[in-house]
Amino acid sequence: MSGLAIYRTRIAPEWLDYNGHVRDAYYGLIASYASDSLMDRIGLDARYREQSGCTLYTVEMHTHYLREISANDSVEVRVRVLGADRKRIHAALELVCDGSPETAATCEVMLLHVCQTPTVHTAPFPEEVVAAIAELQRTSTALPASGPGSRRMELISR
Amino acid sequence: MSGLAIYRTRIAPEWLDYNGHVRDAYYGLIASYASDSLMDRIGLDARYREQSGCTLYTVEMHTHYLREISANDSVEVRVRVLGADRKRIHAALELVCDGSPETAATCEVMLLHVCQTPTVHTAPFPEEVVAAIAELQRTSTALPASGPGSRRMELISR
Repeated sequence: MSGLAIYRTRIAPEWLDYNGHVRDAYYGLIASYASDSLMDRIGLDARYREQSGCTLYTVEMHTHYLREISANDSVEVRVRVLGADRKRIHAALELVCDGSPETAATCEVMLLHVCQTPTVHTAPFPEEVVAAIAELQRTSTALPASGPGSRRMELISR
Repeated sequence: MSGLAIYRTRIAPEWLDYNGHVRDAYYGLIASYASDSLMDRIGLDARYREQSGCTLYTVEMHTHYLREISANDSVEVRVRVLGADRKRIHAALELVCDGSPETAATCEVMLLHVCQTPTVHTAPFPEEVVAAIAELQRTSTALPASGPGSRRMELISR
């Protein structure tokens, strides 16, 4: 196990491209839904968002596409919290297809806590959210990555 | 102008999330459609794909989300070719909303030329595609970036 299982989905037909595989952007949609699940897990759920006017914005996302995902696959997303501060979470998501030993994609995200009223501004997490993030980060530390992490992209001649 | 305008779209209602803005993954979908336009531009169009059994796979994508995109926005995508070799294209995409002086997102992609028959394998670009990519790269060299490029993601304390 390379992370906490946080989200699971089957493949919607409209996610397939002309190659018959999931289009690159829909790997990102699966990761995005997994980030929603992460929000629920740490106390930034719909009720919190309504009451506080605060939410998470994704400020950066770096994805490595390692394997094709097909129409009949079921995908599990696992998360590790790589870092956090008062306002931000740096998380690694891994997409794994049921029955496959290999990771289909790795996806690092940087999430920023933002309050939208009266105007959009960053804000510190509530205490109990800080504790929940810290707990996830503690359990993540021992878990290995199952694919490449973020790096500066460049074309190195082969 | 920070790149060649390659794709343009309005915002589909289903791209909006609970914040009323375009969900992170749909920035990626806009970038993905722009990559399709890039394929058309350099001769890897639908006819080529059908006849050759070859296409481009996205192997890596790194996005910076700089501004919210809203329901009524129209988005233009501009491309610069940062590098290329016999089988790969490293491109920078920029998403810009009409009427806004600021880039909404930057998105670097690494695209790999793959033939799907008889089994999936990488393959060199045809000569005329190499020439088209080289031409785009030449015109890209002088164009400045309008936002951050790919880098190793990390949480640096503020």
